[in-house]
Amino acid sequence: MERTELATLYREYIACLNRQDWASLDRYVAGDVEHNGRQLGVAGYQAMLENDFETIPDLRFNIQLLVVDPLTEPTNDAPCLASRLAFDCHPKATFLGLAIDGKRVLFAENVFYTFRDGKIAHVWSVIDKSAIEAQL
Amino acid sequence: MERTELATLYREYIACLNRQDWASLDRYVAGDVEHNGRQLGVAGYQAMLENDFETIPDLRFNIQLLVVDPLTEPTNDAPCLASRLAFDCHPKATFLGLAIDGKRVLFAENVFYTFRDGKIAHVWSVIDKSAIEAQL
Repeated sequence: MERTELATLYREYIACLNRQDWASLDRYVAGDVEHNGRQLGVAGYQAMLENDFETIPDLRFNIQLLVVDPLTEPTNDAPCLASRLAFDCHPKATFLGLAIDGKRVLFAENVFYTFRDGKIAHVWSVIDKSAIEAQL
Repeated sequence: MERTELATLYREYIACLNRQDWASLDRYVAGDVEHNGRQLGVAGYQAMLENDFETIPDLRFNIQLLVVDPLTEPTNDAPCLASRLAFDCHPKATFLGLAIDGKRVLFAENVFYTFRDGKIAHVWSVIDKSAIEAQL
C-alpha cells in the first residue's frame, strides 16, 4: 500500500467515526481487530466506540499529527500508522475513572495502528490522563 | 532525510539515553527542543531525563514499535517519527503522582517526534498512566 493511500484510508476511517457511521466500520476495521491487546472484533470495537460517544456526547476525533509508514520496524512488516488525536469535549460524568461531570477538557490520544489487507488489525492507544487530571 | 537514516538516528538516540551519555545528547536534540509544548532546550531536556533515571534507577527505553515518516501530514512538512516505548522497571517512590515504592510496573509511552536539521525539535509524549494504576 502506498503512503498516500494509507493516509487517505485513515482519514476516511476518522470521518466514519465522527459521523458515527457504524454500518461502514467494517470497511476500515478487520474482523478480528485487537485494541490494546484485547481481541474485540468489529462488534466489540463498535461497542467500545458507542460507549465513548455515550460518555462524551460531543466527542470529535481531530487529527493533530499523522505519521504514515508503509513499512514498520523492528519486527513487524505490516503497514503502520501513528496518529496524535486532539480532543476538546465535555465528558458528562466519569471518564477514565475521573469525575468530569460535564466540565470542558482538552487532551490528546497518541495511537498506533497496524494494517492487514487494507484494514486496521491492531490498535495501541494511550490517552493523556495526566493532562485531564491537571484540568480538574 | 531518508527513512532508514531517520530510523538509525533514532535508534542511536535511544542508545544514548540508555547509557545516560548526556555529553552526546546534543547530537540528537535541537538547542531549542520542546517537550509537550514546553521549550526545555538541551539542558532542560537532560535535566528531565536525569530526573527520570533518579526516579527509576533501572529505567531502560525499549522500542516496541517504530513508525518513520520522512514526510508528515497534515500541516507539518518536517520529518516525523512515532515510537511506542515499553518499560519494565521499578520506580523507587512516587511516579506520575502514584506511590509505586519500588514495585515492578510495566507500561508504555506513545511518543511523537518532529525533526529539524537532523535533530529532535518537538516531542509529544503520552505515558499510559491507567496501565500503571491497574497494577497498584
